Amino acid sequence: MKIPETLYLEDNALVILDQTLLPNKTEYVRLTTLEETWKAIKTLQVRGAPAIGIAAAMGLYVHMKYFVANGHATEIEAFTAEFNRACEYLSTSRPTAVNLNWGLEQMTETLKANKEEGKSVSEIIEKLEQTAKKINDDDTEVCRLIGEFGLTLLKPKMGILTHCNAGSLATSKYGTALAPIYLAEERGFELRVFADETRPLLQGARLTAFELLAAGVDTTLICDNMAATVMANGWIDVVFVGCDRVAANGDFANKIGTLGVAILAKHFNIPFYVCAPFSTIDLNTKTGADIIIEERDGDEITTQWYEHRQAPQGIKTFNPSFDVTLENFVSGYITENGILKPPFLAK
Amino acid sequence: MKIPETLYLEDNALVILDQTLLPNKTEYVRLTTLEETWKAIKTLQVRGAPAIGIAAAMGLYVHMKYFVANGHATEIEAFTAEFNRACEYLSTSRPTAVNLNWGLEQMTETLKANKEEGKSVSEIIEKLEQTAKKINDDDTEVCRLIGEFGLTLLKPKMGILTHCNAGSLATSKYGTALAPIYLAEERGFELRVFADETRPLLQGARLTAFELLAAGVDTTLICDNMAATVMANGWIDVVFVGCDRVAANGDFANKIGTLGVAILAKHFNIPFYVCAPFSTIDLNTKTGADIIIEERDGDEITTQWYEHRQAPQGIKTFNPSFDVTLENFVSGYITENGILKPPFLAK
Repeated sequence: MKIPETLYLEDNALVILDQTLLPNKTEYVRLTTLEETWKAIKTLQVRGAPAIGIAAAMGLYVHMKYFVANGHATEIEAFTAEFNRACEYLSTSRPTAVNLNWGLEQMTETLKANKEEGKSVSEIIEKLEQTAKKINDDDTEVCRLIGEFGLTLLKPKMGILTHCNAGSLATSKYGTALAPIYLAEERGFELRVFADETRPLLQGARLTAFELLAAGVDTTLICDNMAATVMANGWIDVVFVGCDRVAANGDFANKIGTLGVAILAKHFNIPFYVCAPFSTIDLNTKTGADIIIEERDGDEITTQWYEHRQAPQGIKTFNPSFDVTLENFVSGYITENGILKPPFLAK
Repeated sequence: MKIPETLYLEDNALVILDQTLLPNKTEYVRLTTLEETWKAIKTLQVRGAPAIGIAAAMGLYVHMKYFVANGHATEIEAFTAEFNRACEYLSTSRPTAVNLNWGLEQMTETLKANKEEGKSVSEIIEKLEQTAKKINDDDTEVCRLIGEFGLTLLKPKMGILTHCNAGSLATSKYGTALAPIYLAEERGFELRVFADETRPLLQGARLTAFELLAAGVDTTLICDNMAATVMANGWIDVVFVGCDRVAANGDFANKIGTLGVAILAKHFNIPFYVCAPFSTIDLNTKTGADIIIEERDGDEITTQWYEHRQAPQGIKTFNPSFDVTLENFVSGYITENGILKPPFLAK
């Protein structure tokens, strides 16, 4: 079984799977300049919060290595100046992506600590590589642990429904909601996965279906409005979804359509689990009512992807990106610290 | 307020709104030959069970009128032979459409009865025109009565959710699920309608949004997976859907996604009504379990409408056209005979 790799370091380059070409082409792109990394993040060739943070850290390391190798900065002060310039530049690629800046901050701390210890530029380059790889490996480990805890809920031949893409493509490996599925497949569980296509941006059809199929998982793509029927047919034993933010009381925000799936799962007595790193739990957000939902352009519904517009000119639309599901629909929150229930305690 | 006309007779022609050009162009086409009518039905320029039956009857009348006017058949036997040939030919345009043959049978009965009474060819032509117009007017009256009964459930400013297209475009006028909305708008109710886009064939986006917008109804198009959110927001007071078949116990089949909407409506305590002609109730079908659901090609999910394929080659799909909703989700069945509850008695 092969999960398509999202990104990795190889021969002094950041190599990424170009997600803008999915699902029609599987093409890896080598990024060696800062501008290439910036553009890859900006144009969504690499996307998903954890993956963006890793890409930024790796791209920064690759740039600094070339910068020194080309003789531009053998002195620590010139090195630091360029490092800061590069960080500032990369952070403009997706200004609102928290993980992007978090990745860059990890790298900045590495520079600062080693500079204070009087390490040489070449030693610092090595440490930056280690940090970039560690950010990647830590993410993989968090996802793997989510997978291991989720796996305890699965039995061979089970049917699983998922929504949107909380998969390997959004992280370094395994993903969150798909992590238990990948681990189960490695152990021969022969699961049967149903993927909601997830309108309007089709992350389920374009990304989830792609990575599960590539990994050899028995996957069936359905339209969002078919979830009720596959549940009524008795084909679904458990629902796994990712999430963007969990409030202190357990209410959570995830891709639009998650609320409907949760209500259907409850109706059909199907366990419904939220899979996410522990850091997704935001104790400063009291309840789901405190989560502000982004509304996006109606063209995503009427026009995007289509050869011709498929709704009349002038029609009003409502296009929320996320919805909020209340805690009482959730059987458990699968994190790297175990399967939790609120109240959540700080780690 | 103007509901776009689906089809009508004018100056010895059958005039239809070309639905294959919706929602981007509103173009009426004049059909004067049998071949044009056949092709219009075959290529879905006119669609919707009642509308197809009316189109066939009207197209047959127009053809026979021209046939006689051109001096091809002034004798009753030659007229009858051509009539039968034309019926047989038209019935091949959509072989499985029950209403198509029902429309042609009404015309055949008119010919037979008047021939037995010894009426002349020109008198029979007049009677055929009356029958074609009566099929149309009867359908309009059934839809108007569904609208009147549905209207008793509405109050000004209400929010209504509908799924798929059970509108004017599928009938002679008013539609079924949209009939109460049109009548309410004529009476100044200022309703707020939310239309599910209805994947994969987008009847909600292409047809329902088009006709409601054209009629001046305040309409908001949403993706199917946003229905839960608009209900959670308190924007929906009642759900109206059409239906393809009602079983004797009240279970009913309708466009895929209806079951999910029904479960959500029950969860949010929102009344859910099925709008359909009384003839849709099939007392020979005991329960929903006896209704066989058509599965269609997966290309409708992965490829249709798109500029580029949006799911990986080789992905499995599940694409049922309809789903079955159990009777206990239905607040009432709005027919031309009133708002009913099972057990249904034969009219």
